[in-house]
Amino acid sequence: MNDRNYVSNAVCVKCGAVHEAKPDLTTCEKCGGILDIRYDYDRIRSDTDPAKIQARSDRSMWRYREFLPVRGDSLEDPANGQGSKTALLPKLRVGWSPFYRADRLAREIGLETLYIKDDGINPTASLKDRASAMAVVKASEAGATTIACSSTGNAASSLAGNAAAAGFETYIFVPERAPKGKVAQLMMFGAHVISVQGTYEDTFRLSAEAIDQYGWYNRNAAINPYLMEGKKTVSFEIAEQLNWKMTDYVAVSVGDGCTIAGVWKGFKDLFAAGFIDRLPRLISVQAQGCCPLNRAIAEGTDWRPMEENTIADSIAVGVPRNPDKALNAIRESNGVVVNVSDEEILAAMRLLGRTSGVFAEPAGAAATAGVKKAVGTGLIPQDASVVTIVTGSGLKDVANAMKAAGDPLLLPPDLKRLEQALSAQGLV
Amino acid sequence: MNDRNYVSNAVCVKCGAVHEAKPDLTTCEKCGGILDIRYDYDRIRSDTDPAKIQARSDRSMWRYREFLPVRGDSLEDPANGQGSKTALLPKLRVGWSPFYRADRLAREIGLETLYIKDDGINPTASLKDRASAMAVVKASEAGATTIACSSTGNAASSLAGNAAAAGFETYIFVPERAPKGKVAQLMMFGAHVISVQGTYEDTFRLSAEAIDQYGWYNRNAAINPYLMEGKKTVSFEIAEQLNWKMTDYVAVSVGDGCTIAGVWKGFKDLFAAGFIDRLPRLISVQAQGCCPLNRAIAEGTDWRPMEENTIADSIAVGVPRNPDKALNAIRESNGVVVNVSDEEILAAMRLLGRTSGVFAEPAGAAATAGVKKAVGTGLIPQDASVVTIVTGSGLKDVANAMKAAGDPLLLPPDLKRLEQALSAQGLV
Repeated sequence: MNDRNYVSNAVCVKCGAVHEAKPDLTTCEKCGGILDIRYDYDRIRSDTDPAKIQARSDRSMWRYREFLPVRGDSLEDPANGQGSKTALLPKLRVGWSPFYRADRLAREIGLETLYIKDDGINPTASLKDRASAMAVVKASEAGATTIACSSTGNAASSLAGNAAAAGFETYIFVPERAPKGKVAQLMMFGAHVISVQGTYEDTFRLSAEAIDQYGWYNRNAAINPYLMEGKKTVSFEIAEQLNWKMTDYVAVSVGDGCTIAGVWKGFKDLFAAGFIDRLPRLISVQAQGCCPLNRAIAEGTDWRPMEENTIADSIAVGVPRNPDKALNAIRESNGVVVNVSDEEILAAMRLLGRTSGVFAEPAGAAATAGVKKAVGTGLIPQDASVVTIVTGSGLKDVANAMKAAGDPLLLPPDLKRLEQALSAQGLV
Repeated sequence: MNDRNYVSNAVCVKCGAVHEAKPDLTTCEKCGGILDIRYDYDRIRSDTDPAKIQARSDRSMWRYREFLPVRGDSLEDPANGQGSKTALLPKLRVGWSPFYRADRLAREIGLETLYIKDDGINPTASLKDRASAMAVVKASEAGATTIACSSTGNAASSLAGNAAAAGFETYIFVPERAPKGKVAQLMMFGAHVISVQGTYEDTFRLSAEAIDQYGWYNRNAAINPYLMEGKKTVSFEIAEQLNWKMTDYVAVSVGDGCTIAGVWKGFKDLFAAGFIDRLPRLISVQAQGCCPLNRAIAEGTDWRPMEENTIADSIAVGVPRNPDKALNAIRESNGVVVNVSDEEILAAMRLLGRTSGVFAEPAGAAATAGVKKAVGTGLIPQDASVVTIVTGSGLKDVANAMKAAGDPLLLPPDLKRLEQALSAQGLV
């Protein structure tokens, strides 16, 4: 592979305008709409196939390089360790996260076939590492040395971590109310953290002004179209880990809409290139207390803002920044929508842990809560096959794990008392 | 591979008595000493080689099955997905953690060649997953359905997670003072957690009595010799990720001594089978406030108990439970010992994060603090090649990350004020 890649162009999802896919691409120059990266699928199909990809030793998101919007010379040549400056950037090992067949979880939910894709097992413990790893490569291609974003969550920590590994400076804008633990994680990665005395909107605005002013590379998933191209690699892995035989459904929790849109893009890419012979239906799971996109689908209307009433902070997005792509994805896939309560999310956290040894943050467990509910209400049939994506680790939010966990058995150090207590619980 | 494995026997490290390697093996029947599992290295060497292992698609600790004390039919046959009951146990994907060449970190430390083995990227976020995954397989071989241990730390969470995935019950004994967040993680995995109103010694004793009483499988790294055989897989991966060309040194943080003993066992196994042509020297890093093993090496005396004065809780072990194997390992390798202060540990956490995008818990960063100090004092030469093992993720201990992190820049949402602040810091 030379410095050419398989990208054709970038198309506005709103007005259809076609743009050249430059590394510093943001939104549509004509209407401000979000862009979608298109590929030459025929050429991909003629140059590679599933068996060739499966034979690669690279176990990371970069394994799927033909489907990625990076210059051919931006990835290291495995044969000789040579490449461009971008290829030689040190990178965290993002992707190729664990994929488990979850028979015990399936039985408890009443479903025949269920798989867990655990994307909490990533360098900074969330699926967002895929987007941030892409941001770093595109920033390098654009000649930037500094990357910025505004966020307090997984996007910020993944940007800080991936950028630190590659030697980029980062400026991260957080509202003053951001949890100190999350700010600490950012600062440990050496990010310049600006705590803004104001609302999230104030914070976002100041970051946008500063990005304009200083020419920093913009890592904002709804403005930078490449980030979704990073996120879609989760679908490539799911397909390969299923040996390219897709399940009926794939469930994902939904906040600003970028992740579900990325998941769908990944499957569409594979289908277009002939790697899979059918597309799964998406299960879009939102929190009951914050479900503007699912409401729009359910009511067949435009989306309208909602309050953000849920413990699942990573998907508590009342004004989603990528509604068009997300709604398209759900509709195109003939998807279903499920809203879950905080209690159902906490129960799904316990269920994932107890049956499968997977510790998810609330937003990470929401998809599983949605699958359980969808089976319970008959929205999806019991003999369906489903993949549920865990988008982030429970270690990100121990406070909510404590809410979900309940209390241990408190006892003096006395075997007789232990025996009584265990037999009273019917345990021994 | 049939149901035979490559284990020869189990030898007491104290009195030399030879035992048959049964699945429920604990300590020496004669003197109570800790046992060491021995293999038939000639047969391993005649049946496999580095190239054969490198060609395997399994990217987990089980990749090295010839060197592991599990029955041949305890691991799934990749060809047909068949195997014994143990082989078909669902398993978390443990091992094959990231390995990074860390040039920027090396430069800051003043060292020529430095690699990071990030074992925080494991299912429950620590190296202990390797031991617990082994415990689950051996418990299954022994016909047990319940596993127990006493611990509040990484051993407990890794046992709870790996056992949950495989469908085992767990009983975990913690002292009442155990941090609520850690207890919550255990309970999320469905462990039966017994909070003991007493000291850690009381807790340990009650767990031992209960294990006797109920016949539970014992997951205690200093009693169960197989667990070290799980831990040693980190060395197999390091060697393979170095293309079987060992570095001069490998640095590891040391608490109860089981991990450094496991690390050493792994390299010795590879050397005995001819997979590597030289053994690295170990750098044993302990906290200044709790360094009984390093003190014994430095003074050439027997070890004596110490207080446990360090923030690095995972290595705060004043009475190490595996002193013999650990001291043997350091001495046999012609190793060096380094003690680091809490301030040096916190500085190493920042250094790992800022230069390499790796977020370590204090005990996980201690080895790196030790490398820095050893280079600074001339204990190891600047042109040495070193691997530093990160044994656990910083997400396990956000409170200490907050201590290390410092404060963000606090500002109103005003671009002018931002410009002034950044230029005052010389940043733009």
